[in-house]
Amino acid sequence: MKRSHRVGAICQILTESPAKIFTLNYFCDIFSVSKSTVSEDMAAARAAVEAAGYGYIETIQGASGGVKYVPAISPEKAKQVQDNLCRLLKEESRILGGGFLYTSDIMYNPEIVKGMARIFARKFINSNADYVATIETKGIPVAFMTAHFLNLPVIVIRRETKISEGATVSINYFPGSSERLQKMSISKRAAEPGSKVLIIDDFMRGGGSIKGIVEIFSEVDIEVVGTGVAIANIEPERKKVSDYFPIVHLGKVDETNKTVEVIPNFQIF
Amino acid sequence: MKRSHRVGAICQILTESPAKIFTLNYFCDIFSVSKSTVSEDMAAARAAVEAAGYGYIETIQGASGGVKYVPAISPEKAKQVQDNLCRLLKEESRILGGGFLYTSDIMYNPEIVKGMARIFARKFINSNADYVATIETKGIPVAFMTAHFLNLPVIVIRRETKISEGATVSINYFPGSSERLQKMSISKRAAEPGSKVLIIDDFMRGGGSIKGIVEIFSEVDIEVVGTGVAIANIEPERKKVSDYFPIVHLGKVDETNKTVEVIPNFQIF
Repeated sequence: MKRSHRVGAICQILTESPAKIFTLNYFCDIFSVSKSTVSEDMAAARAAVEAAGYGYIETIQGASGGVKYVPAISPEKAKQVQDNLCRLLKEESRILGGGFLYTSDIMYNPEIVKGMARIFARKFINSNADYVATIETKGIPVAFMTAHFLNLPVIVIRRETKISEGATVSINYFPGSSERLQKMSISKRAAEPGSKVLIIDDFMRGGGSIKGIVEIFSEVDIEVVGTGVAIANIEPERKKVSDYFPIVHLGKVDETNKTVEVIPNFQIF
Repeated sequence: MKRSHRVGAICQILTESPAKIFTLNYFCDIFSVSKSTVSEDMAAARAAVEAAGYGYIETIQGASGGVKYVPAISPEKAKQVQDNLCRLLKEESRILGGGFLYTSDIMYNPEIVKGMARIFARKFINSNADYVATIETKGIPVAFMTAHFLNLPVIVIRRETKISEGATVSINYFPGSSERLQKMSISKRAAEPGSKVLIIDDFMRGGGSIKGIVEIFSEVDIEVVGTGVAIANIEPERKKVSDYFPIVHLGKVDETNKTVEVIPNFQIF
């Protein structure tokens, strides 16, 4: 195999498994070459990944060391993701009754979701989270893609208790959008007590659901180390949680004039 | 930039966006090199991707032509995914009451989900689907990752009507596991009439839910062109749908002896 073939293969293997550590010996074995050759290949792979602009290759020193691909996003590309999201959310055909917007096509589109997940992965790369958590349903794809980039398992909090979840812990909470009591439940098997989780969700209005998630995790002795939401509603100004990271802010949805106000989060990085 | 750097960058860019067509001019522009140079780079990238074993680079001829990365999986790697799934499902700690198994940790693990999605992507690469569809909740990650590999949007069928889905079409159906009537609903905005969908779900017992999905899609004039399920229960032998593709078959769950019977699908490709 030529150097360019090995470098290409290294780039692909690392990209298919973000945040997973590969030893140099792994590549020595699959290419049947010496460690010094792989070291030179890796230097070229590092330059290649930097040129592609999707992230970087990090070296981990020590006995359990190796290399891993860390997905990231440049401020310019993050701005493109935000601008695209703003443009889509302003489409008047999304306006539903009662100030609601149809966003399923956005939240279920792999290309858009990957862009948002890349922003979350970069923001929370040093959160030391053991899991990415979300509440069903529309936030699952972006939570899952963020987890893919961070190489973490996902926890999905359910609205109803399911027999297939085994023993569960449930709470009742007040969502931000109405004052009707709602329920959420988590399997006792979902995570080890003492773990840390990163919450990722598609939308936040008053922060009631996020506050509920923090509460249910504290019931099972799990700490929330960060919260990312794709879209945060500007109203109400006073949220039930204070520490959250939105990609865009959603303002007034005017049903009469068919306009939607959306502002990117300018403090993104 | 050296050739090896360009080849590595090409491999990474293609891998980050499976099934998306990139023109050769795109790479000429970002690397500031001639088309003949990029053609040689692409030949090396093709060899690199083949060596990595995750798929292949396909050339699309014609005016709107270019190259795309097609994720695939070798029969050997597919067998590893199946064997790992069998091993995990046999763990006695998963056995819940009533013959149920706890599988959330499997269905929410990016590494495992990627393996299963790669099998579905290879199986259904020529299905001509416009969307990947699933029903909430546990099948969403594998459906979404399959959609990522096939570069298709996802449709999530809901159990309850939500205001944020706009106008919906609903049906009542009998799931396989009980004879209690259940409901599913789909947003009328989810897909264009005349489209084709590929159904991907985590589990199938009697096939009642899948039959319901086929039915609800026929109500909105959408054709189902394939069905993949991660785990298909062996019982009941007589399913409500005949055409489905499982990764593994789940047999007897013996609560007394703490054993679980799981068999890989031997006709996988």
